[in-house]
Amino acid sequence: MINQNVLEKNISPFVVCPPPPLTLADPDKVRDAADLLYYAQKPLVIIGKGAAYAQAENSVRELVEGCKLPFLPTPMGKGVLPDDHPLCVAPARSKALQGADVIVLLGARLNWILHFGLPPRFNPKVKIIQIDICAEQMGNNVQSAVSLVGDCNVIVQQINDVYGKMPGKFAFSPKSPWWKTLTSKVQANQQSVQQMIDDKSVPMNYFAAYDEIRSLLPKDCIIVSEGANTMDISRTMILNSLPRHRFDAGSYGTMGVGLGFVVAAAAWCKDHTPNKKVVSIQGDSAFGFSGMELETICRYKLPVVMIIMNNNGIYNGLDGESWESLQDMDLSLSLPPSCLTVDAHYERMIEAFGGKGYFVRTAAELKSSLTTALNSKDQISLINVMISPQAQRKPQDFFWLTKSKM
Amino acid sequence: MINQNVLEKNISPFVVCPPPPLTLADPDKVRDAADLLYYAQKPLVIIGKGAAYAQAENSVRELVEGCKLPFLPTPMGKGVLPDDHPLCVAPARSKALQGADVIVLLGARLNWILHFGLPPRFNPKVKIIQIDICAEQMGNNVQSAVSLVGDCNVIVQQINDVYGKMPGKFAFSPKSPWWKTLTSKVQANQQSVQQMIDDKSVPMNYFAAYDEIRSLLPKDCIIVSEGANTMDISRTMILNSLPRHRFDAGSYGTMGVGLGFVVAAAAWCKDHTPNKKVVSIQGDSAFGFSGMELETICRYKLPVVMIIMNNNGIYNGLDGESWESLQDMDLSLSLPPSCLTVDAHYERMIEAFGGKGYFVRTAAELKSSLTTALNSKDQISLINVMISPQAQRKPQDFFWLTKSKM
Amino acid sequence: MINQNVLEKNISPFVVCPPPPLTLADPDKVRDAADLLYYAQKPLVIIGKGAAYAQAENSVRELVEGCKLPFLPTPMGKGVLPDDHPLCVAPARSKALQGADVIVLLGARLNWILHFGLPPRFNPKVKIIQIDICAEQMGNNVQSAVSLVGDCNVIVQQINDVYGKMPGKFAFSPKSPWWKTLTSKVQANQQSVQQMIDDKSVPMNYFAAYDEIRSLLPKDCIIVSEGANTMDISRTMILNSLPRHRFDAGSYGTMGVGLGFVVAAAAWCKDHTPNKKVVSIQGDSAFGFSGMELETICRYKLPVVMIIMNNNGIYNGLDGESWESLQDMDLSLSLPPSCLTVDAHYERMIEAFGGKGYFVRTAAELKSSLTTALNSKDQISLINVMISPQAQRKPQDFFWLTKSKM
Amino acid sequence: MINQNVLEKNISPFVVCPPPPLTLADPDKVRDAADLLYYAQKPLVIIGKGAAYAQAENSVRELVEGCKLPFLPTPMGKGVLPDDHPLCVAPARSKALQGADVIVLLGARLNWILHFGLPPRFNPKVKIIQIDICAEQMGNNVQSAVSLVGDCNVIVQQINDVYGKMPGKFAFSPKSPWWKTLTSKVQANQQSVQQMIDDKSVPMNYFAAYDEIRSLLPKDCIIVSEGANTMDISRTMILNSLPRHRFDAGSYGTMGVGLGFVVAAAAWCKDHTPNKKVVSIQGDSAFGFSGMELETICRYKLPVVMIIMNNNGIYNGLDGESWESLQDMDLSLSLPPSCLTVDAHYERMIEAFGGKGYFVRTAAELKSSLTTALNSKDQISLINVMISPQAQRKPQDFFWLTKSKM
Repeated sequence: MINQNVLEKNISPFVVCPPPPLTLADPDKVRDAADLLYYAQKPLVIIGKGAAYAQAENSVRELVEGCKLPFLPTPMGKGVLPDDHPLCVAPARSKALQGADVIVLLGARLNWILHFGLPPRFNPKVKIIQIDICAEQMGNNVQSAVSLVGDCNVIVQQINDVYGKMPGKFAFSPKSPWWKTLTSKVQANQQSVQQMIDDKSVPMNYFAAYDEIRSLLPKDCIIVSEGANTMDISRTMILNSLPRHRFDAGSYGTMGVGLGFVVAAAAWCKDHTPNKKVVSIQGDSAFGFSGMELETICRYKLPVVMIIMNNNGIYNGLDGESWESLQDMDLSLSLPPSCLTVDAHYERMIEAFGGKGYFVRTAAELKSSLTTALNSKDQISLINVMISPQAQRKPQDFFWLTKSKM
Repeated sequence: MINQNVLEKNISPFVVCPPPPLTLADPDKVRDAADLLYYAQKPLVIIGKGAAYAQAENSVRELVEGCKLPFLPTPMGKGVLPDDHPLCVAPARSKALQGADVIVLLGARLNWILHFGLPPRFNPKVKIIQIDICAEQMGNNVQSAVSLVGDCNVIVQQINDVYGKMPGKFAFSPKSPWWKTLTSKVQANQQSVQQMIDDKSVPMNYFAAYDEIRSLLPKDCIIVSEGANTMDISRTMILNSLPRHRFDAGSYGTMGVGLGFVVAAAAWCKDHTPNKKVVSIQGDSAFGFSGMELETICRYKLPVVMIIMNNNGIYNGLDGESWESLQDMDLSLSLPPSCLTVDAHYERMIEAFGGKGYFVRTAAELKSSLTTALNSKDQISLINVMISPQAQRKPQDFFWLTKSKM
Repeated sequence: MINQNVLEKNISPFVVCPPPPLTLADPDKVRDAADLLYYAQKPLVIIGKGAAYAQAENSVRELVEGCKLPFLPTPMGKGVLPDDHPLCVAPARSKALQGADVIVLLGARLNWILHFGLPPRFNPKVKIIQIDICAEQMGNNVQSAVSLVGDCNVIVQQINDVYGKMPGKFAFSPKSPWWKTLTSKVQANQQSVQQMIDDKSVPMNYFAAYDEIRSLLPKDCIIVSEGANTMDISRTMILNSLPRHRFDAGSYGTMGVGLGFVVAAAAWCKDHTPNKKVVSIQGDSAFGFSGMELETICRYKLPVVMIIMNNNGIYNGLDGESWESLQDMDLSLSLPPSCLTVDAHYERMIEAFGGKGYFVRTAAELKSSLTTALNSKDQISLINVMISPQAQRKPQDFFWLTKSKM
Repeated sequence: MINQNVLEKNISPFVVCPPPPLTLADPDKVRDAADLLYYAQKPLVIIGKGAAYAQAENSVRELVEGCKLPFLPTPMGKGVLPDDHPLCVAPARSKALQGADVIVLLGARLNWILHFGLPPRFNPKVKIIQIDICAEQMGNNVQSAVSLVGDCNVIVQQINDVYGKMPGKFAFSPKSPWWKTLTSKVQANQQSVQQMIDDKSVPMNYFAAYDEIRSLLPKDCIIVSEGANTMDISRTMILNSLPRHRFDAGSYGTMGVGLGFVVAAAAWCKDHTPNKKVVSIQGDSAFGFSGMELETICRYKLPVVMIIMNNNGIYNGLDGESWESLQDMDLSLSLPPSCLTVDAHYERMIEAFGGKGYFVRTAAELKSSLTTALNSKDQISLINVMISPQAQRKPQDFFWLTKSKM
């Protein structure tokens, strides 16, 4: 069959599938949602990728700013409202989740990324206002107080319409105990992050490196991030200003999809938005899954800047043993099985295909090479950033995948 | 595991699943639908089981009666409006489908039961207003002019609200050419059916037998019908007055589900509506799939009347050969493979389990036995009605499963 | 497609699949097997359906009789050697399994029917000589001492050839402690069964009824048995003289297949062995799964005698409560959920299709009706045998599905 | 679960699975096979990977040499007998398949690799002697004349035993018309290959490059080959002297498995046969599927020599257009979609991980770099061999996947 020909006239014409029809939520339930929000003491809005897909940025901005509600984005909901918005409480994420009495889920789901919505990460009495396009998602893991099925954008507009007609309390007070709690936690966390940023040791830690990157990235670039620490820390350190401008492993936590995201996004950008860059920020392990796609990126001259956060493939930092002592051993025998080649020069790979590679150890080198890479029009660059094998996230209040009983 | 015990306190409490949230259609699209209907020359409403499940009988009645629209029920949409409603054009089904220029699909789907919505059974230029709870159903087989996803009841209310505010033409004229066409076809078909009803030959034909049954069934009984001709002809001859009171093979045309329907419906009735009867009308082939459930029905004394339309298992009537000649042959050798035992006495089966059986050859015997069966409180009855092996449906304009190109 | 025609010349000719090729076992392993058997103190042969399928009756007889080995048939291995063979130790089954030091598995598998080959039902040090056509079966549940893959008949011949050349000990002594143990257990069990046979209460118990049936069945009839107690007890009470003459639920314990077996076997017999009868022995629950096939059996005048062991559908006997007290209650309310209609007259069902039914309460009635049924040439008979609801198997040493650790 | 600990004593001991039991073929059928071979006019032996897996090299040598039978290896059957054996007719493959009247399939299957055993590639009257371990393979695509199920080694021994006792004709005459036909075709094909070897153009063609490689490879190295032309041509040009020393895409034609084969084979060699090299010969497209495994190879210092046959990813040679004209175009726009980066320097990739890369254009450069690479003890090498984009296989008599009717 794959060697046969067919006459063009026998090919059926291409029928364009119309856009999916919008659905609205039940007006009675919308009123229930507005009431619940109106009387909340500790409200929280969680902006998920469903809000981004529904292009709900205007209606969500009206809801959040109109009511002065604290909000958290999920990894792929980042940018629906800018990450540096004054109402964003991402730096106080654990505190916000744990304290909220009413949560508005805007196209976000209570799966493992949101700790299943369960104690100890959530208030066991929290009331959930769930907005999702998929009826089968209603009440998963936690029974919702109000279930609103349909298009996220029009449903938030429905809420705004009802809320706008409610008397008196149009906005949640910045002097309330809830806002004070959140604000003080935000500041405390920002200080602890600043300490890590200020640690200028070589090799760098993640926070110091990301601080440089953040300051140089254009507001409209598309960010693809993949890895373990590399992806996790980038969620807080690399800010998004625009919706649908971040690709992340997402709900299924898949490794190896990063370069597929990069190629797809950059192929679209090359044709549609010639000045927009796609910036890939991957751990070296993550890069290894599909690193050969460098050939594709170079062949099609895609507008990509590759950044590899290279800690020798070590997952979550190297505890206990000193890295220096490891370097003295015969590593082909004794390298821990989850590590990669020590000091791999990934930047040479891109040179095989005509790109430009940088090997970077210090913040100054990172700044210089990234500036050049972002300003280059036709040159595809790969920056191999050496990260300390001991580098980790800041200490967390909860072990990952925490799911305990009350 | 099946032999273990568990402490009652270790069993999780039963969490009642809340009713599914309602969704409304996009108001802009609702207006498009109302406009399309307003300007239709040959409108038709098809009432499907989705309308029945959504309990949309009041809103559908307002739409159909308010606008004087002709309507057709699907087999399991029967009873949302009564089958004997003056606006029902079921006797002119083929003409209505073929002529309509605008069709409102109320929870009905353009699958094989509706001939895939395609010519020659449908006007190739027909505009479809599709109302369905399932977004994935939109545009299947035929691209809809307007797609309205959500709860059928509230969406019909949305249409009624818009339509009620439209100027001038509130109702479709009974003097229009479209209504004249339909009315004259209804009358012609009723006359041809009446001829078959009036044929009092023994063994009976389906129409003569169904005429007796129709006149005796209480308005509120639940009708389960299964078979080939038995089910098909019952759709027109056995009328429903109430929604959700008919069980039929449905979209998948499955054989063998009839007695499962009977047991489930009757078990519910026994507990909730003590005077309601479940009347099962099956072909003898259909009965054979799960006839052993008679034992279950009798054991639990379920409020059931069983009617078997017994033409010796012959599918769609016996053409060509005379039945009498078949009876002279050694049937164990020469019986056509799709026939069953000649003159099987199914009524004796129910006697094995304490029920009452009737063997019926004439309309008078049918009337007498069915009257007794319906009036009996505790006795479960099975009426074995001998139907002529030559009996068929009235001639059809189209072969079944017609799906041709223009 | 199902309404299309095709020219006969376009139909591909029917290619007969040749018989499967035979495979022999590795001669070195055959010698290992013969050695193992030669030195066994407590040998046991288990004859499975694989031996029956391979038509291995002559080679198996040579092995068993030549060496005077005790043997057990599995349910569908019955008849490869006659059940009344003096070397058959079926009445001492548990003792034989538990004591054997070397077991020859002839096309039998160590699944749940053989208690997975594990203690406490088997000697933990037993050595298994496994003969099976399927390499993937080797060592399942218990690692075999010798694995012989291939055709059961030719492999047993290979063993016989080797064994025949071995010096001295050609036969296992009937005076050995192993044979004495088995013989005494056989006699003890036969006595306990005889007590149940001699219990002439009405309604009958299984053993009394089966004793009558056993004495009347012709040696060459095909026996289909299905049910719980009905099938289990028939395995010991209803004897097979010929291989491939018994159908049983088999390895998967499926309910509802009995009448399919009956129809298939009887259709074959009708064409090929006109005097052979198929005798179906089913519990009333088992019959209920596909009882409507009576219509098929009667329509094609298949050479079948149906026996229903009717204890009102009760599984494994009614403990604790008296049946008489149950009969006084309103059974439609209080009948235990796993029971069927009390005193159902299944014999009337067959009369619906022109067969002859018998309702039987006593051994004398059973004898009389079965004699008539077996001697009738064209009449298909169903004998509804009332069995006491308290009737059970004799007490077992082990609970079913026993699978404990040492 | 993945974060839990378990006590070592709770881990079940590791039970070694015994080697699979051998099975022999039916002696009657073995005799049929020997007879068929004895009277063949144009016999042919096809040695498949089943013969290699069964370690049948000695028995196959006895059969082939004893009877002077012409033989063909399948890609993974290469080396069971050496490729340079005088009875090997691989250079006359098409002629041998098409002419043979009796074919002995030694663990080879008539799938697409052997053109389904059908005309026009095979004699429609050919008789097949099929030897396979899997009964389900018997008669697939072509009904075998003799089916021998079991272990290839012992079955060939069975044939040898029978054949050795047959009178007179112990060997097939080299003066027979069949051998003359094959010998003359072998010589003609070798001459046409020699012409391509002698074409010393730069960039090289496959044959010239493979001639160099062939002359340098040690006899005991393991060869992994993957690609389209790269793999196909290597099957004839790169010779195997030992069984189980070649890895190839095999029956399923999968791309991307080559480096998995390399890592697995080399990890085994590193521990067991310290002087044995694994030589990977891949097309550049094939390399691209899993090229990142270079990192693994270097990290573990595996004894590997990587050769990339780099024709810019072009499948089956570039027809019609001149490569030079392509190079003048803006390749990011106009490169054919199945091509890769022009002149990619894959040798730089290995330098990223500490290996040694070579960029090679001429036969002399290839000789020099491969000699160094093979002699290096610890250095892992990658040789990037530039192949002409126009290079192809020699012209074939049949289009691939030919499967026509007579």
